[in-house]
Amino acid sequence: MTRATLPIILTGDRPTGPLHLGHFVGSLRNRVAYQHDYRQFIMLADAQALTDNMEDTGKVHRNVLEVALDYLAVGIDPAISTILIQSQIPELAELTFYYLNLVTVARLERNPTVKEEIRLRGFERDIPAGFLTYPASQAADITAFKATLVPVGDDQVPMIEQTNEIVRKFNRLAQREILVEAKALVPALGRLPGIDGKAKMSKSLGNTINLGASADEIRAAVKQVYTDPLHLRVDDPGHLEGNVAFIYLDAFDPDQEGLAGLKERYVRGGVGDSLVKKRLEGVLQEMLAPVRARREAFAQDPGAVMQMLKDGTFKARDVAARTADEVRAALGLRYF
Amino acid sequence: MTRATLPIILTGDRPTGPLHLGHFVGSLRNRVAYQHDYRQFIMLADAQALTDNMEDTGKVHRNVLEVALDYLAVGIDPAISTILIQSQIPELAELTFYYLNLVTVARLERNPTVKEEIRLRGFERDIPAGFLTYPASQAADITAFKATLVPVGDDQVPMIEQTNEIVRKFNRLAQREILVEAKALVPALGRLPGIDGKAKMSKSLGNTINLGASADEIRAAVKQVYTDPLHLRVDDPGHLEGNVAFIYLDAFDPDQEGLAGLKERYVRGGVGDSLVKKRLEGVLQEMLAPVRARREAFAQDPGAVMQMLKDGTFKARDVAARTADEVRAALGLRYF
Repeated sequence: MTRATLPIILTGDRPTGPLHLGHFVGSLRNRVAYQHDYRQFIMLADAQALTDNMEDTGKVHRNVLEVALDYLAVGIDPAISTILIQSQIPELAELTFYYLNLVTVARLERNPTVKEEIRLRGFERDIPAGFLTYPASQAADITAFKATLVPVGDDQVPMIEQTNEIVRKFNRLAQREILVEAKALVPALGRLPGIDGKAKMSKSLGNTINLGASADEIRAAVKQVYTDPLHLRVDDPGHLEGNVAFIYLDAFDPDQEGLAGLKERYVRGGVGDSLVKKRLEGVLQEMLAPVRARREAFAQDPGAVMQMLKDGTFKARDVAARTADEVRAALGLRYF
Repeated sequence: MTRATLPIILTGDRPTGPLHLGHFVGSLRNRVAYQHDYRQFIMLADAQALTDNMEDTGKVHRNVLEVALDYLAVGIDPAISTILIQSQIPELAELTFYYLNLVTVARLERNPTVKEEIRLRGFERDIPAGFLTYPASQAADITAFKATLVPVGDDQVPMIEQTNEIVRKFNRLAQREILVEAKALVPALGRLPGIDGKAKMSKSLGNTINLGASADEIRAAVKQVYTDPLHLRVDDPGHLEGNVAFIYLDAFDPDQEGLAGLKERYVRGGVGDSLVKKRLEGVLQEMLAPVRARREAFAQDPGAVMQMLKDGTFKARDVAARTADEVRAALGLRYF
């Protein structure tokens, strides 16, 4: 099996800030694993990030390099994974343009993911049109690379369904199977809580541990990690449910057997939070030290990183351009 | 003054059918006049035509050549006017993509032109998203060429206002005057009634006289032209208001003095409709015969017409690409 025949994955991030442990658990870790068995396109979705960042375009621009450094730091290998910058592939905007004709406004408004994101951002009626229509843009991204697998959180599954509706509608009009349907690939351990115990680790909530965090930052964050508010004295029995220290240990501790023993003792009573946090800090420091070191090494030569992005984007554009060409031909838009 | 410094006009047509006398009066005639004093971009808006023609893309494709023949037939000169095919300039889709972030869904829904067009097409809630968002696409078309004048019917004036809102919003974000505001250029004699007396000559109403009509078709159409239903006998006094034969004569008769005399006699009584129609037929036959002849001559060599469209499109793409580049730079989307 050559790489060209491997199943295609599209994945990526909106470059609006540094990536953190939540990204690592939810997606980055899987990408490092997937890249050998799949043909993986990883998109820096700068154009999509603009849909709600038009007032701060500089932030998006800066974070393209930062997120690329995060990718390299965790072990994504640009020699086998194709990393691309969305905005530099105009065919994606072009496909979006045509897909907008294949989806109704009512259908977009019913999309549960869009609904929830609109609520989160407090847009009310003043939704930027680009925000309401971003499922068409996402369909463009997925179909341009003919991805059949899209790793997403369970909240994003309706987006994939909307993409597939567009795919079916387009293929019916074209009377040919030009576009390919995709499946959502929902990770087993999808979402990491924030250090404050909130359901989601998120930059905007200020409850993250970044992948590039310094040793001091890791230490300070672990101190703040939410545990069991009822576990006041060492001898008190502790609770594991909602206990972020243990959730992180579940996710990252390489010695799961030792962890099981610790949990038993914690629940019984007799293990202080400080001991648990010490273990957690050790695990995180050990895990993130090489990530940070690689990140710093790559950051020494931003020119080389940008060249890597340029190469990846050119390679990806080639693929997207071929799809756009097929789409144009099917729509009768080939004249010369 | 070189041509490069002339004021820029953007105009064009959706290629969904042959052009007719309504187009001639409302726009084509002006374009032939304007092309000497303005730098004129004339767009075959095939991509826009798809917003409500996805089920019949072949129609759009075919009519690109047909409408181009109409242009050449009426005297639009591709040596001084730039004729372009919208879909072949992907920068227009790209600009649309970004402009969608600068306009809210509520604002699009309030656009009177869009509202009316939605009503006309009976879309109700099932409006294709591409249809609701087409003001952003139109803004892309206008601004890509930095047009300052856009000839439109009075019903389209709100579209230009929406474009200018996007221009102002973009320039404010960019903190530079990158895009240029445009003015609507509403023709004095904007709308020609159909031969049946309906307010608008329109292919979908079947009340047109096409520019390429044969002598027989012109004759048959003139026979059907709506006059004065109260003017039953030659001696009856006739009415001019709503009398399509006279409206057409007003628009096309080169002998306006003779026409004034005829009107006087018609109103007084003593002039039959057949006389009026005979005059009208003579005027139309004389006007359209050379148009038809030129159309047929150009139609002999469709390859040359397509080459002309290719040249115009390439020239126009150059201009649009420069604008897109400025827009990308202002949005922080220049990396390499």
